[in-house]
Amino acid sequence: MGTVGIIGLGLIGGSFGLALKRAKLADTTVIGHDRDNRRAERARDAGAIDRIAASQTDLAREADLVVLATPILPMRRILEEIASHLKRGAVVTDTASTKKSVMTWARDSLPDHVHFIGGHPMAGKEKSGPEAAEETLFDNRPYVVIPSVNASEASVNAIFGLAELLGGRPMFMEAEEHDAYAAAISHLPLVASVALFSMAHGSQAWPELANLAGPGFHDLTRLASGRPEMAHDISLTNRDNITHWIDRYIDELLRLRELVDRRGDEDENLFRTFVETQLARDAFVANPPVRQIPGMAVDMPTPNDSLVALLAGGYAAERMREVTENMESDIRDRQQERLRHRSD
Amino acid sequence: MGTVGIIGLGLIGGSFGLALKRAKLADTTVIGHDRDNRRAERARDAGAIDRIAASQTDLAREADLVVLATPILPMRRILEEIASHLKRGAVVTDTASTKKSVMTWARDSLPDHVHFIGGHPMAGKEKSGPEAAEETLFDNRPYVVIPSVNASEASVNAIFGLAELLGGRPMFMEAEEHDAYAAAISHLPLVASVALFSMAHGSQAWPELANLAGPGFHDLTRLASGRPEMAHDISLTNRDNITHWIDRYIDELLRLRELVDRRGDEDENLFRTFVETQLARDAFVANPPVRQIPGMAVDMPTPNDSLVALLAGGYAAERMREVTENMESDIRDRQQERLRHRSD
Repeated sequence: MGTVGIIGLGLIGGSFGLALKRAKLADTTVIGHDRDNRRAERARDAGAIDRIAASQTDLAREADLVVLATPILPMRRILEEIASHLKRGAVVTDTASTKKSVMTWARDSLPDHVHFIGGHPMAGKEKSGPEAAEETLFDNRPYVVIPSVNASEASVNAIFGLAELLGGRPMFMEAEEHDAYAAAISHLPLVASVALFSMAHGSQAWPELANLAGPGFHDLTRLASGRPEMAHDISLTNRDNITHWIDRYIDELLRLRELVDRRGDEDENLFRTFVETQLARDAFVANPPVRQIPGMAVDMPTPNDSLVALLAGGYAAERMREVTENMESDIRDRQQERLRHRSD
Repeated sequence: MGTVGIIGLGLIGGSFGLALKRAKLADTTVIGHDRDNRRAERARDAGAIDRIAASQTDLAREADLVVLATPILPMRRILEEIASHLKRGAVVTDTASTKKSVMTWARDSLPDHVHFIGGHPMAGKEKSGPEAAEETLFDNRPYVVIPSVNASEASVNAIFGLAELLGGRPMFMEAEEHDAYAAAISHLPLVASVALFSMAHGSQAWPELANLAGPGFHDLTRLASGRPEMAHDISLTNRDNITHWIDRYIDELLRLRELVDRRGDEDENLFRTFVETQLARDAFVANPPVRQIPGMAVDMPTPNDSLVALLAGGYAAERMREVTENMESDIRDRQQERLRHRSD
């Protein structure tokens, strides 16, 4: 049907490829490129991509859908470099953990005939590289979809459908909104985790502390084992939101410190805080959001029409519609016919 | 051989019983008592104890080894209540997460003929109750052993051996030392976890945050689902150490905040911090401390002589030695003979 090109073949790019393969889209080729060609080879050997593109511009020339799955900061340069090589009507998406910067870079770099839709599959683990990739990584995870102003409705629907196809729970959001929420629920935990480990490790008592460390310390510091590039790029592209949430976190720590430090009467408030937090968290854990697919008993969604159209070259038709407004109805009819033909 | 009595049959008390059963000590009876008799029945049905003692004083009258596995604060009253009912030469131990208070209470309450040895098996999970108990809960976990001043060497060795028998890695420590380390590696993570959840949950954006929450947030807030009684009692009995470590944690968060907030030149320092922390944590995770049992290929240790002696009633003999110094060598000979006889 078409070609998907993944740039960056680490944990996320590799999992993207594997999840796409799991969906078994007919006649779809997945190509990939990585700055580190050995990593690209490992991703190919793991089955995440069918073939390695010799360069990212080669990939851009061939792909109907381009997925950026590198660390965040390099995406700026990549967008600039692939811009003039992208096919007319191509759809470009990304997987960055912060969205405002990438949306700006895409707007500044990409030509009008390309549709950029930001994406953030909110999944990950502390291991990196294509060896750590899993076809189930996105299953039931939030997948934030952020259309650029100029993206066509069909391209937006295609990415929304793709997010579902990968197993995720797609949801639309503004870039600013995403970055504010992600700072609280994802980036602050990362900073809190790094701070806890570096504090303990920096202590003179570290040998004794390490010897006594249990599953609690292990879990709370897990995020500190993530890729430093990721933490760094997130911090730089979401500075203000992150510092805001660090401040709120410190306020909350000081509130608890006060409760711990006071004597007598305050014990009740401390106990009440622990009880309320436990109840709230247990309720949260007991009712995790899950993807609802109406009328479907099986796990695997079928690709939506927009995704089919994208990979079927429907985008070429759509692009023409943008050029010649008066041909619009004709093309639509043809497109419909083609889809009808295909579903026969 | 003897009777072990467990007071408090939740996660820790239940796991203690199960781990003891797994060791298959010959002719050892495990009895238990819980303030909530239904919980005691559930622990018995789960196989953690052989029989329920009608009261804690009944249990004290019968047990050669008494294990306190209740929340911390109630231990004070329990020690007072069982003190006059304990057998001569009985050994009493506990499982509290803070040790200084319990050591003081034991010193103030228990008669001289009883040997108190504080214990802290550093294991747990966020689920509570005997249903959550596991015979493997203490496997390879640190088990801090804190002898009281008056405890006999044999009783200390018995508890050390017991900790090994339960699967743990026993280590001697002073109570003050334990409480300082535990504050950093265990109690601060608990407070940090509670603070992160209560901060997010208290935010107006909580519905959106909850929807976006991933495994990172889940792991970092896991400890907030622990028993509130535990968090509360830990806080009250280790106040000064915990507030000290909250302060150090806030200092570290402010250091990171500063690095995130600065522009340009400081990026390198931020990146270096993330890299160093990742490397240090990966090294820590790659080399977890494990229990070394010289010359043993199997998992299960055999009970040491002191534990055998304790449960075999050797303590009665030892008590007599304390009473009549001049009988000492006679008794020792007899004890040796008895052990020799047993190992034939």
